[in-house]
Amino acid sequence: MGPHPAVAEIRRAVRLALDGVPRDALVLVACSGGGDSLALAACLGFVAPRMGVRGGLLSVDHGLQEGSAERARQVAELGDRLGLAPAEVLTVVVGGEGGPEAAARSARYGALDEAAERLGAHVVLLGHTLNDQAETVLMRLARGSGTRSLAGMPAGFGVYRRPLLKITREATRAACDALGLKPWDDPHNEDPAYTRVRVRHDVLPAMEQALGPGVTEALARTAGLCRDDADALDVWADEVYAQVRELGEGLRVETLRDLPAAIRRRVILRAALAAGAAASALGAVHVEQVERLVTEWRGQRLVELPGGVGVVRRYGTLIFASTVS
Amino acid sequence: MGPHPAVAEIRRAVRLALDGVPRDALVLVACSGGGDSLALAACLGFVAPRMGVRGGLLSVDHGLQEGSAERARQVAELGDRLGLAPAEVLTVVVGGEGGPEAAARSARYGALDEAAERLGAHVVLLGHTLNDQAETVLMRLARGSGTRSLAGMPAGFGVYRRPLLKITREATRAACDALGLKPWDDPHNEDPAYTRVRVRHDVLPAMEQALGPGVTEALARTAGLCRDDADALDVWADEVYAQVRELGEGLRVETLRDLPAAIRRRVILRAALAAGAAASALGAVHVEQVERLVTEWRGQRLVELPGGVGVVRRYGTLIFASTVS
Repeated sequence: MGPHPAVAEIRRAVRLALDGVPRDALVLVACSGGGDSLALAACLGFVAPRMGVRGGLLSVDHGLQEGSAERARQVAELGDRLGLAPAEVLTVVVGGEGGPEAAARSARYGALDEAAERLGAHVVLLGHTLNDQAETVLMRLARGSGTRSLAGMPAGFGVYRRPLLKITREATRAACDALGLKPWDDPHNEDPAYTRVRVRHDVLPAMEQALGPGVTEALARTAGLCRDDADALDVWADEVYAQVRELGEGLRVETLRDLPAAIRRRVILRAALAAGAAASALGAVHVEQVERLVTEWRGQRLVELPGGVGVVRRYGTLIFASTVS
Repeated sequence: MGPHPAVAEIRRAVRLALDGVPRDALVLVACSGGGDSLALAACLGFVAPRMGVRGGLLSVDHGLQEGSAERARQVAELGDRLGLAPAEVLTVVVGGEGGPEAAARSARYGALDEAAERLGAHVVLLGHTLNDQAETVLMRLARGSGTRSLAGMPAGFGVYRRPLLKITREATRAACDALGLKPWDDPHNEDPAYTRVRVRHDVLPAMEQALGPGVTEALARTAGLCRDDADALDVWADEVYAQVRELGEGLRVETLRDLPAAIRRRVILRAALAAGAAASALGAVHVEQVERLVTEWRGQRLVELPGGVGVVRRYGTLIFASTVS
């Protein structure tokens, strides 16, 4: 008798994610003890030796809940039993910047980055599922910031891979059941103080109710399509930007005018960032202000961008320059 | 004292939408008597003579509700009083195809098209607002069909213009109040049998609650950005498709392979439609099947597309041909 279908599905996803990883390389899994990353860890424990790679586990103690240290230790011990070595606890201190979710994420990735480098890991697996992806798309929608934002979480970035992005939370729970693993239910996952929890418990059910079943899958599919679209638009914008840069200082208005709006704005964004504008504060509204120097020219003066960058139009060219002396 | 800000905003939007309409041309407004189209009709009555164009009104009787004929007549009479001439009632018969909303829409646009042509109208204005756009984006999300679908309703198509797409329902209500107009509250707008009503009354409030205020505006902004992105991607795909068509029969695999996935799929879509595939039944799943002849080639046979079109890969070329003899 073969493995449970959910287990087989997750193992297959792990194998795909490890395709191309060299022999004897170290592959880590970040595991909270929740159902998603627990199923992922168990499947890495199974797949790694069969693919000739080493599987290890990282268990992050955020120190935000009573007993979190003990829990992180138990997860690391379970990693041991799953044949994952090393199986380490990483203790982090969560700051307060950008809200509780952002602060925890930033501390977590900092620790994972450090451990991956210290241990010489080739890949770090993350347990985000199709459901997480759908929730991410909904949270991004509320920002109104377009295709790249709707693309959700990438399947890979840096050393990280997300093998479960096309697998449901239901399947990871079924896999844990089938493997006799007891996932830990993080009380934070029920705490309506978190945006993600509100999206999961209130928004998605309301959408399924109003729009019919399959909304979660549709949102995840939207993310994939938007990612491909955003990637293609970036290819075009990169090409145009490389060409205009070769021509010397500034962006020619006549080049920008003939571009589709979506490409024009992306080229302007690239020029603004290259001139030193602050990526975190630079929004669509700033890019549109610069765009109007091209599309609605009536002698506007300096457009100021966050990060001390100013843009002026002179002799048919947009000049980006530092306004900080 | 100037007009109420909401009235001024809608008049400005109507003026913008009529930019370029020739002198003495006829501009019609489709009016249900609801707040959105009523405010639009009133503002057309004000703006049209001042711009030297003729304003008229079309009131559609769908025959779906008790007293709908009487109501449509009252709306046409109100058009008269607003200085709109002609002010006509169009009586339509709603079929059953594609669900109640689709059937009513199809009957309505059929009648509007006919009237616009018969009366020689230059433009027909529709009263869809920013809120309608946000609801449309949410309904499209449930399909999981990507950027073009998320682009929502266009600001113009054929003779139609939607001047209110950046104006809220709140503003149209305020304008009606300020102008002493009593909008008709369509009981269908409260009937949870309609997807749009469920989105309006259940999903959007849940999203505002979970994600904070401004979700409606963010969704409408998303639509605009996705429209620009989809337009740019179409420009690129059209260009590639025109090039490959010039080279003769079929799409060269090596050309397709080097394209970003988003462009590759759009080029395949164009080739499939040109070969006679049924646009209404052709989905992402079919396009992806054809794509795999390029990206995951392992000697697959004929890929069948709806509408009796088959695709095979032969000597490094995808051949699209009718499978109907």
